Amino acid sequence: MRKTGIVGVLMFVLLSSFVPMAKKKIVFFGDSITEAGAKPGGYITRIGDIANKEGKANDFELIGAGKGGNKVYDLYLRMDDDVLAKSPDIVVIYVGFNDVWHKRTSGTGTDADKFEKFYTAIIQKLQSKNIKPVLCTPAVIGERIDSSNEQDGDLNRYSSIIRDLAKKHSLPLIDLRKIFNDYDHQFNTENKESGILTTDRVHLNEKGNQLVADEMWKVLAGL
Amino acid sequence: MRKTGIVGVLMFVLLSSFVPMAKKKIVFFGDSITEAGAKPGGYITRIGDIANKEGKANDFELIGAGKGGNKVYDLYLRMDDDVLAKSPDIVVIYVGFNDVWHKRTSGTGTDADKFEKFYTAIIQKLQSKNIKPVLCTPAVIGERIDSSNEQDGDLNRYSSIIRDLAKKHSLPLIDLRKIFNDYDHQFNTENKESGILTTDRVHLNEKGNQLVADEMWKVLAGL
Amino acid sequence: MRKTGIVGVLMFVLLSSFVPMAKKKIVFFGDSITEAGAKPGGYITRIGDIANKEGKANDFELIGAGKGGNKVYDLYLRMDDDVLAKSPDIVVIYVGFNDVWHKRTSGTGTDADKFEKFYTAIIQKLQSKNIKPVLCTPAVIGERIDSSNEQDGDLNRYSSIIRDLAKKHSLPLIDLRKIFNDYDHQFNTENKESGILTTDRVHLNEKGNQLVADEMWKVLAGL
Amino acid sequence: MRKTGIVGVLMFVLLSSFVPMAKKKIVFFGDSITEAGAKPGGYITRIGDIANKEGKANDFELIGAGKGGNKVYDLYLRMDDDVLAKSPDIVVIYVGFNDVWHKRTSGTGTDADKFEKFYTAIIQKLQSKNIKPVLCTPAVIGERIDSSNEQDGDLNRYSSIIRDLAKKHSLPLIDLRKIFNDYDHQFNTENKESGILTTDRVHLNEKGNQLVADEMWKVLAGL
Repeated sequence: MRKTGIVGVLMFVLLSSFVPMAKKKIVFFGDSITEAGAKPGGYITRIGDIANKEGKANDFELIGAGKGGNKVYDLYLRMDDDVLAKSPDIVVIYVGFNDVWHKRTSGTGTDADKFEKFYTAIIQKLQSKNIKPVLCTPAVIGERIDSSNEQDGDLNRYSSIIRDLAKKHSLPLIDLRKIFNDYDHQFNTENKESGILTTDRVHLNEKGNQLVADEMWKVLAGL
Repeated sequence: MRKTGIVGVLMFVLLSSFVPMAKKKIVFFGDSITEAGAKPGGYITRIGDIANKEGKANDFELIGAGKGGNKVYDLYLRMDDDVLAKSPDIVVIYVGFNDVWHKRTSGTGTDADKFEKFYTAIIQKLQSKNIKPVLCTPAVIGERIDSSNEQDGDLNRYSSIIRDLAKKHSLPLIDLRKIFNDYDHQFNTENKESGILTTDRVHLNEKGNQLVADEMWKVLAGL
Repeated sequence: MRKTGIVGVLMFVLLSSFVPMAKKKIVFFGDSITEAGAKPGGYITRIGDIANKEGKANDFELIGAGKGGNKVYDLYLRMDDDVLAKSPDIVVIYVGFNDVWHKRTSGTGTDADKFEKFYTAIIQKLQSKNIKPVLCTPAVIGERIDSSNEQDGDLNRYSSIIRDLAKKHSLPLIDLRKIFNDYDHQFNTENKESGILTTDRVHLNEKGNQLVADEMWKVLAGL
Repeated sequence: MRKTGIVGVLMFVLLSSFVPMAKKKIVFFGDSITEAGAKPGGYITRIGDIANKEGKANDFELIGAGKGGNKVYDLYLRMDDDVLAKSPDIVVIYVGFNDVWHKRTSGTGTDADKFEKFYTAIIQKLQSKNIKPVLCTPAVIGERIDSSNEQDGDLNRYSSIIRDLAKKHSLPLIDLRKIFNDYDHQFNTENKESGILTTDRVHLNEKGNQLVADEMWKVLAGL
């Protein structure tokens, strides 16, 4: 898609002179972070702001499909209604926090191998409908930079699974785990649990929402 | 089958005088208990023995499809390969132990509401292929009769969900939780953790396998 | 103590006309339920009201020593400061909820055998100072009456440990688990999770506080 | 140590005719790793071998006091019998694995703040008897070097607590967590879960036992 041949470019020029450009419909598919992302100040809203500023407001339709507490198999169970029914061009999958976190808080996290299976099932179902998946790694549960956040090990592992899936299926990856870690290493000089990019170790504060918006835009703008 | 019209009966009589009766193909779909059930001495093998003794060995084909550690969504994920591919007439679903037990042992049990959702998805997929589901409640994790086995609360809850699903979808129910509890109340006079119907609180000893076989036969013979 | 002979009564009358009756100092030692118990409307406050009504306000000094989130070993760790330093005559130990509940919510519940060890250590330390322990079983985590509250099995088990300790050490027992179960079986006809004696499955509403106060009074008044 | 050579015995006799050399009695206080450490090939046995080789066999009496499954409060509960009764000069405390690990496997790990409290109580009780505590951090649960072992976050956190306690109480620290991580980063080039210093992610293989012995000796020889 990124390296369109001459013919493709000509086609585009020809078509775009006659028919109105179709908006790219992007569904953001995730958990409470994405649910909040669709609200004022949220990362989806901020992506809209960026698009607007760059004069591309008409190129994209952004749709939030986040639901608090969702794990990968929750996304799987509701993808017909909440994603496919909207016929998007692109789906940004942003999941994994609760798959790890619920191991601790309710004993109902997701086994690593099942995480991969359901994630794969989502990717395949999207691709079978010609929808492009964009993958994200789960950023942080706790912002301490000395690798002492309880879920660090699992977040690294599940992020690794997502990175491998992106490679295997040749899909765009927004590696928020790495991006947040890098940011925290630079700015969280007091090794605080939260307050740098999150309000409560997980959910995004203003800076967190902006960082996610900026990083997603880098990838989405080029699709 | 239960409400066969006159025409159906006549058809049956007509057909059965000409063609050999088709065996009823039953898949037993579950976890390690069912995996062991297909081995010598296991409950599936014993159902075969009963059928044999009653001269009905040719009426049934019994297929074990149990896999250690499986939870309801594992069944869901492998039902195409392990069940539908075999075109059974009946599928006995016997699951729930690990959905509850893994909360404790690995933090990856199944939320009650997701248990119901995936269980329902299995039922609907079977019914859409004209396969009859038969439901079972998970018997015991621990045989103490004073309601002090750690998972008693959850087993009662998840069993209750299965009973409601059987009612809602008008499906045969083999209520092994109740059957085992009744048996233990009668015979586990010393309030032991295991050794009455199980070897290790969960997996079936000889008597446990026989009890499951007897109770399943009562239902299966009539279908 | 409960059946004082005539001589004892006379002695009491004689003595009480000369020397000021020493108040019995009772410390209520527990978790958030006891912390709330010391507030207006709480069960300790209500015990005070009962004593007052029965003209025994001057016989007792009631001291709340409850702390949210406490497990048995938290009581053990702070008993010097919060109990022994106050030189009580009686200590009502009301613990066990978090020992069971934290298994689910933070992975840091208390093993059953350690629960017994620390509980025993508390009893022995109190007795070595001539302080009388009064034991309570943990009432409920969830009020459903069909034994389907997730922690029912463990609450029954840990209550059983406490009952055995009371028997072994010949100590008064206030069996709140049994008392609450009996009450819920009578009044929770809709099998609700909470709202009968608790506000949130665990913490006491007005009726719950009154029931605990009444039942504790029955035992404490006779000591 | 058990089979002291003739030379050693003679040396001892010679030396003891001038100044009475008191053997330093060292108790190794811990969990299953230390329980195995006292067996042939175990790290305690290997420390004895090193002492022997360096002609210091008579300077030390090494006593294993490890017990499978022990957490910090298990050590606390049995320290009178298993440690103080032996009147040691030095106690090597090597604990923390199960405090973290049992969160996952049985829901009964130790809260970080209680870990510190019980650890402190052990230190203070030893110091009150003029026994020198030597602290160790818990090495590894999983040897993957990309920080993706599930317990990495918690092991780092609890190790950090132990490091702070060593500093606060001015006690020798054997930082096995750091030592193992450094070793694994050098030699676990394939990012394997186990097999470098452990047999099963936790328990020590030959190299692991030798490494622990070498590192402990460095500290103990100088005390």
